[in-house]
Amino acid sequence: MTAYTATVTVRLKEGVLDPEAETTKQALERLGFELDHLRSADQFELDLDAESADSAAERADEMAERLLANPTIHDYEVEVEQR
Amino acid sequence: MTAYTATVTVRLKEGVLDPEAETTKQALERLGFELDHLRSADQFELDLDAESADSAAERADEMAERLLANPTIHDYEVEVEQR
Repeated sequence: MTAYTATVTVRLKEGVLDPEAETTKQALERLGFELDHLRSADQFELDLDAESADSAAERADEMAERLLANPTIHDYEVEVEQR
Repeated sequence: MTAYTATVTVRLKEGVLDPEAETTKQALERLGFELDHLRSADQFELDLDAESADSAAERADEMAERLLANPTIHDYEVEVEQR
């Protein structure tokens, strides 16, 4: 077994409204910053032991499907690195 | 001016308790997943126009200092890519 860190990044799907990101953008603009667009995402770094990077990615994928992301409104991506 | 996307990742500093991450980890364990540790982070993707990648990074850095992160409890990192 090897120790891996799987990083799961969960974003709202294109077209899903994100009032929190909009509010953050407006707050930055009030502070004088100019920006075109702001998107927010949640990131989970999972430390786990697995036989291979592929099997670590597969388990992270399953955790995203079952708990970390809501497939109706979220897209997610998984990256795996050896620890 | 060139269009850049600056990605600001905001994490709790080492040693700061993260009850939300702990709860998420326990929920995953209840679903039968095994993992050693779970850290959560907030990610902000900022689309902005700047003279150079360095100047885009500098502005993203300032936005992190002033609003996106709380320097008392957070570490953050900034990555810049041309759009």
